[in-house]
Amino acid sequence: MSTKKGLLERLREGPVIGDGGYVIELEKRGYVTAGLWTPEATVEHPEAVRQLHREFLRSGSDVIQSFSFFASGDRISDTKNKFTGEAINQAACNLAVEVAREGDALVCGGVCQTPAYRKGATKNETRTLFRNQMQVLVDNRADFLLCEYFQFVEEIELAIEVAKTFGLPVAASMCIGEKGSHDDVSLGQCAVRMARAGADVVGLNCHHAPMTVVENIKTMKKALQEAGLEPFLLTQPCGYHVDEAEKMGYLEIPEYPLAMEPRTITRWDCHRYARAAYDAGVRYLGGCCGFQPYHIRALAEELLPERGGRRAPAMDKHYPWGGGQVHSFFTMIRRRSTRDYWENLQPATGRPRSSAFSKCDTDYTVVLD
Amino acid sequence: MSTKKGLLERLREGPVIGDGGYVIELEKRGYVTAGLWTPEATVEHPEAVRQLHREFLRSGSDVIQSFSFFASGDRISDTKNKFTGEAINQAACNLAVEVAREGDALVCGGVCQTPAYRKGATKNETRTLFRNQMQVLVDNRADFLLCEYFQFVEEIELAIEVAKTFGLPVAASMCIGEKGSHDDVSLGQCAVRMARAGADVVGLNCHHAPMTVVENIKTMKKALQEAGLEPFLLTQPCGYHVDEAEKMGYLEIPEYPLAMEPRTITRWDCHRYARAAYDAGVRYLGGCCGFQPYHIRALAEELLPERGGRRAPAMDKHYPWGGGQVHSFFTMIRRRSTRDYWENLQPATGRPRSSAFSKCDTDYTVVLD
Amino acid sequence: MSTKKGLLERLREGPVIGDGGYVIELEKRGYVTAGLWTPEATVEHPEAVRQLHREFLRSGSDVIQSFSFFASGDRISDTKNKFTGEAINQAACNLAVEVAREGDALVCGGVCQTPAYRKGATKNETRTLFRNQMQVLVDNRADFLLCEYFQFVEEIELAIEVAKTFGLPVAASMCIGEKGSHDDVSLGQCAVRMARAGADVVGLNCHHAPMTVVENIKTMKKALQEAGLEPFLLTQPCGYHVDEAEKMGYLEIPEYPLAMEPRTITRWDCHRYARAAYDAGVRYLGGCCGFQPYHIRALAEELLPERGGRRAPAMDKHYPWGGGQVHSFFTMIRRRSTRDYWENLQPATGRPRSSAFSKCDTDYTVVLD
Amino acid sequence: MSTKKGLLERLREGPVIGDGGYVIELEKRGYVTAGLWTPEATVEHPEAVRQLHREFLRSGSDVIQSFSFFASGDRISDTKNKFTGEAINQAACNLAVEVAREGDALVCGGVCQTPAYRKGATKNETRTLFRNQMQVLVDNRADFLLCEYFQFVEEIELAIEVAKTFGLPVAASMCIGEKGSHDDVSLGQCAVRMARAGADVVGLNCHHAPMTVVENIKTMKKALQEAGLEPFLLTQPCGYHVDEAEKMGYLEIPEYPLAMEPRTITRWDCHRYARAAYDAGVRYLGGCCGFQPYHIRALAEELLPERGGRRAPAMDKHYPWGGGQVHSFFTMIRRRSTRDYWENLQPATGRPRSSAFSKCDTDYTVVLD
Repeated sequence: MSTKKGLLERLREGPVIGDGGYVIELEKRGYVTAGLWTPEATVEHPEAVRQLHREFLRSGSDVIQSFSFFASGDRISDTKNKFTGEAINQAACNLAVEVAREGDALVCGGVCQTPAYRKGATKNETRTLFRNQMQVLVDNRADFLLCEYFQFVEEIELAIEVAKTFGLPVAASMCIGEKGSHDDVSLGQCAVRMARAGADVVGLNCHHAPMTVVENIKTMKKALQEAGLEPFLLTQPCGYHVDEAEKMGYLEIPEYPLAMEPRTITRWDCHRYARAAYDAGVRYLGGCCGFQPYHIRALAEELLPERGGRRAPAMDKHYPWGGGQVHSFFTMIRRRSTRDYWENLQPATGRPRSSAFSKCDTDYTVVLD
Repeated sequence: MSTKKGLLERLREGPVIGDGGYVIELEKRGYVTAGLWTPEATVEHPEAVRQLHREFLRSGSDVIQSFSFFASGDRISDTKNKFTGEAINQAACNLAVEVAREGDALVCGGVCQTPAYRKGATKNETRTLFRNQMQVLVDNRADFLLCEYFQFVEEIELAIEVAKTFGLPVAASMCIGEKGSHDDVSLGQCAVRMARAGADVVGLNCHHAPMTVVENIKTMKKALQEAGLEPFLLTQPCGYHVDEAEKMGYLEIPEYPLAMEPRTITRWDCHRYARAAYDAGVRYLGGCCGFQPYHIRALAEELLPERGGRRAPAMDKHYPWGGGQVHSFFTMIRRRSTRDYWENLQPATGRPRSSAFSKCDTDYTVVLD
Repeated sequence: MSTKKGLLERLREGPVIGDGGYVIELEKRGYVTAGLWTPEATVEHPEAVRQLHREFLRSGSDVIQSFSFFASGDRISDTKNKFTGEAINQAACNLAVEVAREGDALVCGGVCQTPAYRKGATKNETRTLFRNQMQVLVDNRADFLLCEYFQFVEEIELAIEVAKTFGLPVAASMCIGEKGSHDDVSLGQCAVRMARAGADVVGLNCHHAPMTVVENIKTMKKALQEAGLEPFLLTQPCGYHVDEAEKMGYLEIPEYPLAMEPRTITRWDCHRYARAAYDAGVRYLGGCCGFQPYHIRALAEELLPERGGRRAPAMDKHYPWGGGQVHSFFTMIRRRSTRDYWENLQPATGRPRSSAFSKCDTDYTVVLD
Repeated sequence: MSTKKGLLERLREGPVIGDGGYVIELEKRGYVTAGLWTPEATVEHPEAVRQLHREFLRSGSDVIQSFSFFASGDRISDTKNKFTGEAINQAACNLAVEVAREGDALVCGGVCQTPAYRKGATKNETRTLFRNQMQVLVDNRADFLLCEYFQFVEEIELAIEVAKTFGLPVAASMCIGEKGSHDDVSLGQCAVRMARAGADVVGLNCHHAPMTVVENIKTMKKALQEAGLEPFLLTQPCGYHVDEAEKMGYLEIPEYPLAMEPRTITRWDCHRYARAAYDAGVRYLGGCCGFQPYHIRALAEELLPERGGRRAPAMDKHYPWGGGQVHSFFTMIRRRSTRDYWENLQPATGRPRSSAFSKCDTDYTVVLD
């Protein structure tokens, strides 16, 4: 571990590729329950989590994030999980550490929003929840901490503040859009407050589409610059086209979470996203819900020059820009082997009654029962 | 093995659930090369193949099919594979046998069309290719043989004929649509010829959308009845909406194979398909390219009553019909927890310039180089 | 009048262009009531009817059809019209005759289906209704009679039979699709029966889209040939894209009749239709509901060579294939001045939630009150 | 005429309904040439112009606008018109005056942007062009002057300034969107400058969709209020859905001008627009290109209460909200007779490959030859 370059050193050298989404993918594979979205698979079915980690590693991820999403103590007990948060987080770290070693990846210890804060916990109670969860992550060899998927800027400030006490690099990202945080702070000010709270890396994750998130990180960057702050920038958008969504992103979309297939981004969308994010100054690029291993590989392929030509193992199973189609017997398929072809293709749905946009449900009422 | 019920016995008792698609899914996971579509992962990365087998088993598959697609000797050498067909097939069987034992599943030894036949191999040469491949599958404990993904009825007749010599049950399916086989035999007559060649189970796989395949199996059934034949019926469609496709199915679709995301079927499409197929008399129901574990689970959930309430492990991680959404904090998401909601939802793409249908490329010219 | 070439003579010489739709267009102009669809405007607002006749004439119509749609005596009294059917029909003829003389057009006396027949009138009662209406048309100088918009083949047989007694050429068309008539007679047999009843011109009008109608007229032609019959063929489809409609055509479409705008055909669709219909052997080509003057002009432009280069007055106000766009100040618009551009354009809706197809309502229950 | 209430008096009393679009509609009717868009039909075919004026009047227009679009002297000679601008404008007034008298409508004398200004004419030369054209309009009994369809705020200031010298009320509207004028002045400042130049009525016309124009007029209103100005507000949007358009509105849309059918607004869109515009404070509501008589009627129907229940003649040929469909024989059509039905219908295109949005052409290069 000691000889491994740290996160900040890597970020200074060039783009770092994060990993993709766990809960959505493991739901499809049969290990996570939609609606609960808790990560007990780390204990129940470690082979499934290990395999997905490994697929991201093989696809080019420089970071393996512990599968500890929604694993704060309160969330785990609220959902009547068979396991304790501690057990889940510990198992999560073991898996991440094991797979990270198969390459040269960093272990990211992840924490996210807590139900407790939303329900009115005091700042101290909230800090305690974060401290307990982070302690397990740090004890189990996380290389850095990531506070992600926060909607309230005050809550993420508390998380960052606690994270900083462990002496590791801290990254922080909120799942908000151009309308700002749920405690009504603008995108730009959220960035400033995350940086001022001590985050070394600041950004956005989940909820919004890749190109939307790139636009929003530009807004953040501008506010940071105006405040004289220069953290590294991070984007890990969701892997779906949800342009019509407003404040709450894909949560508003009627298809969320069980009929999102037609919105799934292609590998070509990932090329576009990677290029735009990099050009906007983002140095920690990954994905969140909906990002599968082949999406991560597309990020790594697009940024191959910026990463000194460093290849990922799964690239050996992939011809860039559809080049493998020349091996088909059929002329019609052979034609589909150029960058021009795939970059310009506008994919159809095959669904006679599909539309481009849905009518979003923007009733943001919260039920705390 | 000896105490396990055989395929035909199971089919007589009720619906048998097949598994889903391997090449497309393993391409996304980083283990199969698009354009080549060969299964050397059985040797190179057995853990990845094992994991996908296991996910299908957990989702309700009664059959684990050896991952031996396109693994005829000629295809493997044509594509300059590092491994021999024999090695790949043998490893494929080992993995299928291993995972099948984790449940009570049958091992299906699969063979498919050969480049050789298309290029003009004699009947005897073609028979030899099939015999060599099948010998490995049988020696390595396949419970039955499946000849699938054939476009020429004459070629599948040869495959069935050879398969029958091993004394195991034989299933046979072609990847053709309402326009019939590539040697210009109608859908109905293809079914009749497969049955007359000795197939115990007859049907259709891949290339066309689930509901299209259900319509086509009805045509086959009618012809079989008129010929006084009563094989079991099988459908394993592709997991994509490709209604506009003609003779060659999804191969004609401009998005194939690297931008098919918006066409991917939802779990709700699987409920519809399972019900329609069962009502049409199909007793071996599965999927091909595009069918992921959660699609298979949806088949098993839809046919739960017909299968005596037999649950699959991954059902413990799934509330039927979106019921888990009641656990959300947000009212807007809680509403999405009923059968009525998901059955009637028409999913949108989030892509402002997407259309329902593409202009298919129906230039069927073949290049044999 | 005496020196004017008759319908059959013209049809022998080359394609005859009919006119377009009256009720839908005059509804939009404020003279016809949606839901009633009766033509009392001939009496109330002759200037509006005259103007639309004139626009069709100027656009290339060789035929001016009396605006006597739904003007059988029973329909007029059922809908509590202020005027008698006789007055409406007579005024309709006067207008058609007046405008036809402004060019060299034929006056077509039109009759259509009667509510009485649907409600159970005897054959004799139905014949009387037709005779009464036709007598007015003939007395007022119709050059030929057209029985159109029939759904029951028996009813149109009665109409044709009566029409023949006046000694004028008789054309006949039904508004049916590939599923045949409402008295369950196939498309082909409907054509045969219309021809055997004495129609000189046989075909299809309204309800279905242009290219669908072209396919259906081919079916009719085949059946006529097999029966040794050779009437002239007529198509006057509706001017809407309604491909998803089944037996009842556009009536099934949820947008009918008050939100059909996105389905309206373009002039380029008319070029395609005219060419396809002519190639299929159709010699009387026009349109029905939704066909506006510029659609008719497009038919005449497409068939200019087949019509000996005979130009229509409104062609002087039209550059073929968008050529006039070269007069724009803007480069982006100047590009839109070629046949290639317009033939290949796939028009979008500008409506974010629009889809390609609607869910048709195929509840064909009839209420006779 | 002297007893007729003037424009400003009417605006103070309640909403004034303008008329719809002439050039697009008369192009479809065969009297205007696409690409040239000049109004010589006033001389050549007065009956066609008179009829369209009358249809708008019957539909509820309180204003009949002289068909003098693009009839500045320079445009008419640039396009090699057979007639002089003076002759066209004079004939235009005669027709407008004649039809206005059939009701109680005002005659609007319209002028629009000149090619000369774009090509570099001096202010004085531009003023002279406007003065010459307006003189004809005023001499021929226009009740007020409307300067419309301007893209440069400086040019419309010149037009307003000249218009004011005639002592009639002056309305002014630009065809710009949220990105402001072509001489780079913001929407709000354009409004302020039009008002300061003397316009009694200020607003937006053409190029953008109705609901977009309503949003934009709100921006104008805010700027006017901040400047302490209170002109009446006018909106006459184009009758198309063109949400994806940017600075140049529908000119950017690839379908413009010859395949706009799927974008055409429905009467229900007009209800929505009328309500939103009225609520935003607009008092002069009409339409521009694409607005047909039935669209104007829908505006008048929506605002019936605000107009004291004053009915228009064409309302006698229209059941509100589809009520006439109860007269159908078919149950499926009878269902389409409620406000709820039509308000919630999302119209489809019937075109399998249509999309919601097109890729706009935003190459704004201008060619002055």
